[in-house]
Amino acid sequence: MSISDWVRSEIRAMAGYQPGEQPAPGERVVKLNTNENPYPAPPEVIEALREACDPQCLRRYPPPDAGPVREAAARAFSVAPEQMVVGNGSDDLLTMVLRTFAGPGAVVAAPGPTYSLIPTLTAIQGAEYQEVPWADTGEVPVAGILAESPNLALVVRPNAPTGHACTLQSVAALCRDLDAPVVLDEAYADFAAEDGLSLLASFPNLIVLRSFSKGLSLAGLRLGLGFAQPEVATELHKVRDSYNVDALAQAGAVAALDNLDGFHEAWDAIKAERQRLTEALRERGFEVGDSQANFVFARVPDGNGGAWYRALKERGILVRHFDQPPELADGLRITVGTPEDNDVLLDAVNDIASP
Amino acid sequence: MSISDWVRSEIRAMAGYQPGEQPAPGERVVKLNTNENPYPAPPEVIEALREACDPQCLRRYPPPDAGPVREAAARAFSVAPEQMVVGNGSDDLLTMVLRTFAGPGAVVAAPGPTYSLIPTLTAIQGAEYQEVPWADTGEVPVAGILAESPNLALVVRPNAPTGHACTLQSVAALCRDLDAPVVLDEAYADFAAEDGLSLLASFPNLIVLRSFSKGLSLAGLRLGLGFAQPEVATELHKVRDSYNVDALAQAGAVAALDNLDGFHEAWDAIKAERQRLTEALRERGFEVGDSQANFVFARVPDGNGGAWYRALKERGILVRHFDQPPELADGLRITVGTPEDNDVLLDAVNDIASP
Repeated sequence: MSISDWVRSEIRAMAGYQPGEQPAPGERVVKLNTNENPYPAPPEVIEALREACDPQCLRRYPPPDAGPVREAAARAFSVAPEQMVVGNGSDDLLTMVLRTFAGPGAVVAAPGPTYSLIPTLTAIQGAEYQEVPWADTGEVPVAGILAESPNLALVVRPNAPTGHACTLQSVAALCRDLDAPVVLDEAYADFAAEDGLSLLASFPNLIVLRSFSKGLSLAGLRLGLGFAQPEVATELHKVRDSYNVDALAQAGAVAALDNLDGFHEAWDAIKAERQRLTEALRERGFEVGDSQANFVFARVPDGNGGAWYRALKERGILVRHFDQPPELADGLRITVGTPEDNDVLLDAVNDIASP
Repeated sequence: MSISDWVRSEIRAMAGYQPGEQPAPGERVVKLNTNENPYPAPPEVIEALREACDPQCLRRYPPPDAGPVREAAARAFSVAPEQMVVGNGSDDLLTMVLRTFAGPGAVVAAPGPTYSLIPTLTAIQGAEYQEVPWADTGEVPVAGILAESPNLALVVRPNAPTGHACTLQSVAALCRDLDAPVVLDEAYADFAAEDGLSLLASFPNLIVLRSFSKGLSLAGLRLGLGFAQPEVATELHKVRDSYNVDALAQAGAVAALDNLDGFHEAWDAIKAERQRLTEALRERGFEVGDSQANFVFARVPDGNGGAWYRALKERGILVRHFDQPPELADGLRITVGTPEDNDVLLDAVNDIASP
């Protein structure tokens, strides 16, 4: 037998999830492709990290269940520490959710198009992914999801890569009508008008996920938060890697959660620039939906998203283009950068449109 | 339906892996229960970490495949970067291996008793764990493992919690005769007389795992290395979380790999203390096997391991005791600490034996 015969058929058949490209260290690009916050974390966070670089602390294992982070999150979001699971990024939490609730043959449903890691994780489990199109209004297609009888449903809000946010009412309707866990992935919630944490008290099947990689400017640290009923959290902890969040990430997370006020100025600036970018692109013939995230999804004037992606890359600007599914191929997902970054982008757009 | 009905039956039935207890910050204990290195990493590593605490770097995602770490490991161990997979701890690599090679109904075999995370990860996959007793000589029971026709075999060398190291010849025999991947978990290799990396060139089914949590004094950072054929590494990368190793851990790993010489003094000191501890415990009536790890497995004089564990804990000394399986219940797994730590332990042993 050969190596590939030893591999599970589900894995052999997969291409693997493709993360957005990261420029090499020192490469000069305007990086608007992976939705990082253009503004760094406040100095308190960096100071806490430097202090945590202690050799005696680092030779020891970190708190296995990230107790200090759960307690800081409980303070920040008015929940109990027992409701919290901390992930090595919110992708790690998505993995835990899939491993807990979706075995082989299970059905996983989500309104789509949406975050492309979800079908990848479903495939690793040998489960079946059913994508149900978002309602034309942008709402959760509740009846369509119920019709799939899923073992697990996921809703990304604000959604990637479209940037739109369904109403919390439609999330609540899904939680009420579905007899299965509902994951609300709120990676981009810091840029939205409202969030779904308030639904937790009403729906025992709701699991809310947050990320530190977008609003909290700590993509380099890999941190995510999961909020759920304590009974659900207990099950997720069973499949969590024993020491999944390292000591430095825990120190950074606590400092970020204790200093959330220090991020608001950046979020406000990004929301203002999102509005400016949306309008400027519309003026240039792009079709841009209203976004509640820190990126916009812009359908290009001539419909050839791939050509625009390459033309921007030639000009030193990275944005994200999805070949698949076909309904995304005419668009670009553009992270909202600093005003300077966005000006560079808009100048390049002018240049490409009228060379 | 209730919450537990939504959970996969394999997860519902599990207790979850129990990591060794970690004292609360500030708690004063002699901590000899989770096999950390008692000596900190060299100053170059800590300096590299402090420098990496850069806000502009931390707001960005890290290199997704830990390229700088793979390159540093390739330099340090004379392998190709394409042979390397970096984990968020070597437990993360064990998870990747199980998810890649062991689906529901697969058979996973290992000589035992051994690392108790292996059956837990097997259960999460819905696969079947077959533990085959180590040969009386301490060798891999090759025929016994072949008789289980496993889809995956794992050998821990030096083994936990016994501390003994099978010969590399018996690992090679298993690789040669088994038509399935063989994982050689070398978390404790830095304390052993020899290691198995030299076998990689001969056996395409061999995967070697290393940890930074023991010899490299970085348990707080969560880092592991996987070595395999490039074709095997490609499959493991598919189930790896896209950004599983954070930017600070990557910086620390590179500095540690570039400064391996800085660890040798600590390893030599630990090996000398291991010998002293082994002999001192034997003189006190314990049955202690020869260890090649940074811990000893010591069967207590009266056979009541749990009572000794509690008596030591009352005296501020944490060691590890395993209730299960029964053949381990009369023993304590004691990490080799500093000479001072070990003296405290031995004094306590005297005190417990002759109060």
